[in-house]
Amino acid sequence: MSKEVKSAYYGSFFHAPVYGEFEYLEDALIEVDGDGVIVRVVTGDDPCKSDLLEAYRNRGMLVELGEGRFGLPGFVDIHVHAPQWPQAALALDEPLYLWLEQRTFPLESKFSDMEFARRVYGDLVDALLARGSTTTVYLGSAHLESSIELAAICAEKGQRALVGKTVMDDPAANPEYYRDASPAQAVGDTATLIKEVEAIGRASKQGIWPVITPRFIPSCTDEVLRGLGDLAASTGAYVQTHCNEGQWEHDVVLERFGKTDPYALRDFGLVNERTIMAHCPYVTEKEGEMFAELGVAIAHCPMANSYFSSAVAPVQRFRKQGIHVGLGTDISGGYSPSMYENIRQAVLVSRLLETGVNAMLPPDERGGLGEGTRVSIVESFWLATTGGAEALGLPTGTFEPGRAFDMQVVDTKRPDCDLTGFGVFDAPIDRLARILYLSTPDNVRKVYAQGRLVCDKDAR
Amino acid sequence: MSKEVKSAYYGSFFHAPVYGEFEYLEDALIEVDGDGVIVRVVTGDDPCKSDLLEAYRNRGMLVELGEGRFGLPGFVDIHVHAPQWPQAALALDEPLYLWLEQRTFPLESKFSDMEFARRVYGDLVDALLARGSTTTVYLGSAHLESSIELAAICAEKGQRALVGKTVMDDPAANPEYYRDASPAQAVGDTATLIKEVEAIGRASKQGIWPVITPRFIPSCTDEVLRGLGDLAASTGAYVQTHCNEGQWEHDVVLERFGKTDPYALRDFGLVNERTIMAHCPYVTEKEGEMFAELGVAIAHCPMANSYFSSAVAPVQRFRKQGIHVGLGTDISGGYSPSMYENIRQAVLVSRLLETGVNAMLPPDERGGLGEGTRVSIVESFWLATTGGAEALGLPTGTFEPGRAFDMQVVDTKRPDCDLTGFGVFDAPIDRLARILYLSTPDNVRKVYAQGRLVCDKDAR
Repeated sequence: MSKEVKSAYYGSFFHAPVYGEFEYLEDALIEVDGDGVIVRVVTGDDPCKSDLLEAYRNRGMLVELGEGRFGLPGFVDIHVHAPQWPQAALALDEPLYLWLEQRTFPLESKFSDMEFARRVYGDLVDALLARGSTTTVYLGSAHLESSIELAAICAEKGQRALVGKTVMDDPAANPEYYRDASPAQAVGDTATLIKEVEAIGRASKQGIWPVITPRFIPSCTDEVLRGLGDLAASTGAYVQTHCNEGQWEHDVVLERFGKTDPYALRDFGLVNERTIMAHCPYVTEKEGEMFAELGVAIAHCPMANSYFSSAVAPVQRFRKQGIHVGLGTDISGGYSPSMYENIRQAVLVSRLLETGVNAMLPPDERGGLGEGTRVSIVESFWLATTGGAEALGLPTGTFEPGRAFDMQVVDTKRPDCDLTGFGVFDAPIDRLARILYLSTPDNVRKVYAQGRLVCDKDAR
Repeated sequence: MSKEVKSAYYGSFFHAPVYGEFEYLEDALIEVDGDGVIVRVVTGDDPCKSDLLEAYRNRGMLVELGEGRFGLPGFVDIHVHAPQWPQAALALDEPLYLWLEQRTFPLESKFSDMEFARRVYGDLVDALLARGSTTTVYLGSAHLESSIELAAICAEKGQRALVGKTVMDDPAANPEYYRDASPAQAVGDTATLIKEVEAIGRASKQGIWPVITPRFIPSCTDEVLRGLGDLAASTGAYVQTHCNEGQWEHDVVLERFGKTDPYALRDFGLVNERTIMAHCPYVTEKEGEMFAELGVAIAHCPMANSYFSSAVAPVQRFRKQGIHVGLGTDISGGYSPSMYENIRQAVLVSRLLETGVNAMLPPDERGGLGEGTRVSIVESFWLATTGGAEALGLPTGTFEPGRAFDMQVVDTKRPDCDLTGFGVFDAPIDRLARILYLSTPDNVRKVYAQGRLVCDKDAR
């Protein structure tokens, strides 16, 4: 690992190294080495700053963010169904089983067509980068080949990615035209995916990792779950699945195994410190303790909570229990590819989880969790950056030495979306809140991942 | 009124004349007269269409939307606090009283400065037009002069607007630096506003109307409420106020008058068929019947519901009771100036109102209203267009003869926001859902109000 500074970035930056707090680095200088890793952050009041600035400028190594622009860490989106991108925003008024049968399964089955897969996946990765997401955890389709291709596309475009091939082998639960042929094939394909994606990752700068990805218990046989659990043990690969997303899933698993989703997954060997559990609104205090103990991360997907969970995941309780929590857009159980929209949504749903919803009931019978439930906008920012990084155990999410230099540059002076605030309420927290609540994709002008410029709207 | 066609628009259009349904007018031709009123809609299969197209083209009267572009009705946003625009997105983690004391009142008080007012209001009207809102109901600050100026700015920029001067006269409830000097002054100023804004409206093509605007009961004396009620009776002007926004407001009014907000407002003469009641989550079945009988409209503000109401307004119940319902962004009790974001939010909060929020309770004890509560994306689109028009009794919201030609042109092929869907799921409902859920301000390219091009991003 080189420690020599290869480029330096001058401007004002927001990040959130500590949950519930944010830091504003005004007129700071971030030094980055040839591996795209942050070497040092020189703060605005450092006496060496002006000499350094001049030196880097003279050597042509300095990037200045410019006036009215702010650097934020690239977002970490830990739950995206890549093949559902063409379905984003569609049929969200339908119940889950119809949504899967009529939309999701027919669509995902098309990813045997590599040309179609390349077109959709390329567009998706571009769309996510354009919205500042520099790290994404993807669930692919059930096809091995197109899932490996997704990893290759991320590698090429410079996005840090974790990529799985979705496993769904139960003939009783999945349509004939779209499912794994057998448990053995599904486990074998996953083993191949692990090798292939690891190779792609080794050749990349930003890192690409494979993920063992049973869709969820109801679509898998016992045999495949056991096989994937064994693979998790032998390879140490990441695991992602859905856990307790809704009442139906909760009940089906309980009836099948006499135990709930978290325990069933654990007993198949699928719960460890490399596991990402999506959704989890139905995870109890006790199940949460087990998750904390085993080092699991929860992917909170606030939009999908409203559409498909009949409840809101209690993020603050999870955090207090010591569980890692990050945010997921859940394309397309959530409609938006924007982590900004999901940051907002995490705040909004937490407020209704606090109070309940039906004003015809007295406040204390309204079904809310009460004080301590709210997620603030700053906490939500943390979830989308540091929280996601912590969930994956990857050095990103903040501007600190040793972390990857993943940055989005937000221009607060765009036409139709001026975030400068007319000279009132101009404290750092206000600037940050405006950026998080009001910015549109057009405000995000440049995106860097591992020091590489992966999206540049200014150059258009 | 001229009936002669002065311009014609050719392309594909979406609108929602009937609640719960939408209509897709493919390759249709909309004829508009010199007053900006729709004369006729020539459908795609009309045998006269090609002759008409040629004739209009030859005469230079034809506007073609272009490939991949769709016309939607301009949005009707029926609840916007204009002076709170610089505060949008800020301090939403604070309780209402702090939010008002530390942010809203100091900010609104600045609108005695006409230069500041012009700068903020001009930017706000531009921002709303750029997001497709062609009709807006504004609450101004407590100042007469800047509120009249807001009406003038809307007239000049071509936005249809209803504008009020906020009344807040109770010395016990409002800070000394920002309140009406007396009930008489507040009523007198409102009477002046009515005259001045009516004059501005008469000189405009699209229409500008004054609104009698008591902030809400807790900030007003009995005397001023009576005075404004009398003014409503004598002038027939629109009335807007907040009603039952939260538990605190509900309790304070009940204690003061021994009756709830809706009845208290009615007894002051402030409830009639020209009244817009913002929020209303606490409005009971019985109060709703009274509202329906008197022809009141409710401004549903889904974002503010989450932040400040501790509950979600039961839109479907209101609709079933025969109450007019439209949507409001509620800047800045809601952060977003975009009706798109609010359309999405109306769907999302309705899902949690249906089910409740806390999964640790059994489904039937979770506090949800159950079946029939959901607002679909198509219903939400209706609320933002036809519903708002109905609420105000104004001929806009749909592409039908006799209505104002208020249209936004959405380009589905923008960089970073392609809504074309890769050739899958291309039914009209899917195209519409993608537009409503996924479009950004950049997708809205041109906006027409009363036949006038009021925003043109293509020309930049």
